[in-house]
Amino acid sequence: MARPDPWQLNAANYPQSLLTPTRFQDMDPNRHLNNVAFASMFENARVRLNRSLRPWADRPKNERSMVAAVTINYLREGQYPDDVTVCSGVSKIGTSSYVISQAMFQHDQCIATCDSVIVCRTDGQALPLRPAVVQELEQMLIKRD
Amino acid sequence: MARPDPWQLNAANYPQSLLTPTRFQDMDPNRHLNNVAFASMFENARVRLNRSLRPWADRPKNERSMVAAVTINYLREGQYPDDVTVCSGVSKIGTSSYVISQAMFQHDQCIATCDSVIVCRTDGQALPLRPAVVQELEQMLIKRD
Amino acid sequence: MARPDPWQLNAANYPQSLLTPTRFQDMDPNRHLNNVAFASMFENARVRLNRSLRPWADRPKNERSMVAAVTINYLREGQYPDDVTVCSGVSKIGTSSYVISQAMFQHDQCIATCDSVIVCRTDGQALPLRPAVVQELEQMLIKRD
Amino acid sequence: MARPDPWQLNAANYPQSLLTPTRFQDMDPNRHLNNVAFASMFENARVRLNRSLRPWADRPKNERSMVAAVTINYLREGQYPDDVTVCSGVSKIGTSSYVISQAMFQHDQCIATCDSVIVCRTDGQALPLRPAVVQELEQMLIKRD
Repeated sequence: MARPDPWQLNAANYPQSLLTPTRFQDMDPNRHLNNVAFASMFENARVRLNRSLRPWADRPKNERSMVAAVTINYLREGQYPDDVTVCSGVSKIGTSSYVISQAMFQHDQCIATCDSVIVCRTDGQALPLRPAVVQELEQMLIKRD
Repeated sequence: MARPDPWQLNAANYPQSLLTPTRFQDMDPNRHLNNVAFASMFENARVRLNRSLRPWADRPKNERSMVAAVTINYLREGQYPDDVTVCSGVSKIGTSSYVISQAMFQHDQCIATCDSVIVCRTDGQALPLRPAVVQELEQMLIKRD
Repeated sequence: MARPDPWQLNAANYPQSLLTPTRFQDMDPNRHLNNVAFASMFENARVRLNRSLRPWADRPKNERSMVAAVTINYLREGQYPDDVTVCSGVSKIGTSSYVISQAMFQHDQCIATCDSVIVCRTDGQALPLRPAVVQELEQMLIKRD
Repeated sequence: MARPDPWQLNAANYPQSLLTPTRFQDMDPNRHLNNVAFASMFENARVRLNRSLRPWADRPKNERSMVAAVTINYLREGQYPDDVTVCSGVSKIGTSSYVISQAMFQHDQCIATCDSVIVCRTDGQALPLRPAVVQELEQMLIKRD
């Protein structure tokens, strides 16, 4: 739960960006965007990034990608009904896992960041990432400025 | 819980329209949009319509609008990650309440309709709608074709 | 969207009752239970009632039960973190559909009711309820006092 | 996002335990408990722990506690409609912040852990924890076995 790095706060560094309207149900009793709503919006952008990786489409039947860990840093309060933009990319490629890093922006300010460890596995066992997957992930790397 | 009227299924009849991207969390175990997600998206469009009525801004302190009843008709299954469009308008103006009617569209088909009874009240008691509110609501009436 | 009948407000009339703790995320900006949270809690109790009907277990593969319509009447505001109790039963058995009626109680007061029309169908077509299903549904009828 | 420590996986180490029934809406398209549902259930138990700390009741008006960061480790898939138990306690007390650590159990197995950094602050500025708060937090410390 270290603080986010400076490169993570710059929208221009990310390969993907998703405009996300907020919903009334995202608000909490303090009239700000709820912590769990942040998690839901980050998840949605993460799923869309994962689906844009082509090799997942023809993956072996016993191969699955699973979320092993998610860390969210809450930097500022979010407002309804203003839109947010969720930027997403890959920040690390390991042997059998990779990290998707994300940042959420509202009114040009970063209000939260998110890091998710995705593991590739067959039932119950970690699996090395296939070269075709690694190649796609490399196209999604976040720039470090 | 009568079936929706034909005028309710025509997007062109509604004064307001809200493009709503779906979220991964909206999906249910059958891989369609969840019934409760429909409720959440209808609520969001309803709140935005209510907020666009100017007289609410300078309302008397003891006046509140409350949702008394909501009926949703589920007509077709909804898909993720495809966007939906929620159309909203006023279908009935009563003495102390009004009805917001809505329809949700995906791929040019109506997948659900929603009718919400909104009552205007002070603490514990129904209150006649102020003329300024009625006037605004009349601008939001849905066309009957 | 008629008002609930008196028999619907009496917890003793229902064959099933589900104690449901509320969650922080159920609260809305007015610090009461959110309308959509009501929908989520009613849905959960409805699914559990449907699952308790044995003939669903050995249903024909092309037979599905689907929610066609849901009406919720909001009677009082709900509080967090207080528990609610959701009472559920069958209020009507038709040819190819049935109605599940529910009531939500908090501090011994009914705060909302819900009526859901469930249709039994194969792909795209309404299907008569099988006698075994009707028999089970009859065990779940709500008492009218 | 380090792996959870062994002491974190033992329910007996935590001062608080909250039985949490799962809801149909917690399920994802893979028919397991959704990642965001985990976040919602952890949040609910965390709020209840925070509310059980008495000094928050008579806190200075400009003092707020805010969630600065949340890390969830997903260890096993969760099932609906089975209950989960969320165990919560304090794992670290800093100068102006503290860490709530939690573990979620289902069928006597730990299926996820969560660490949340809570900061105490006035508007825009970190604030040292008051001695009365520290004293309460010390009563909530998790045992390290």
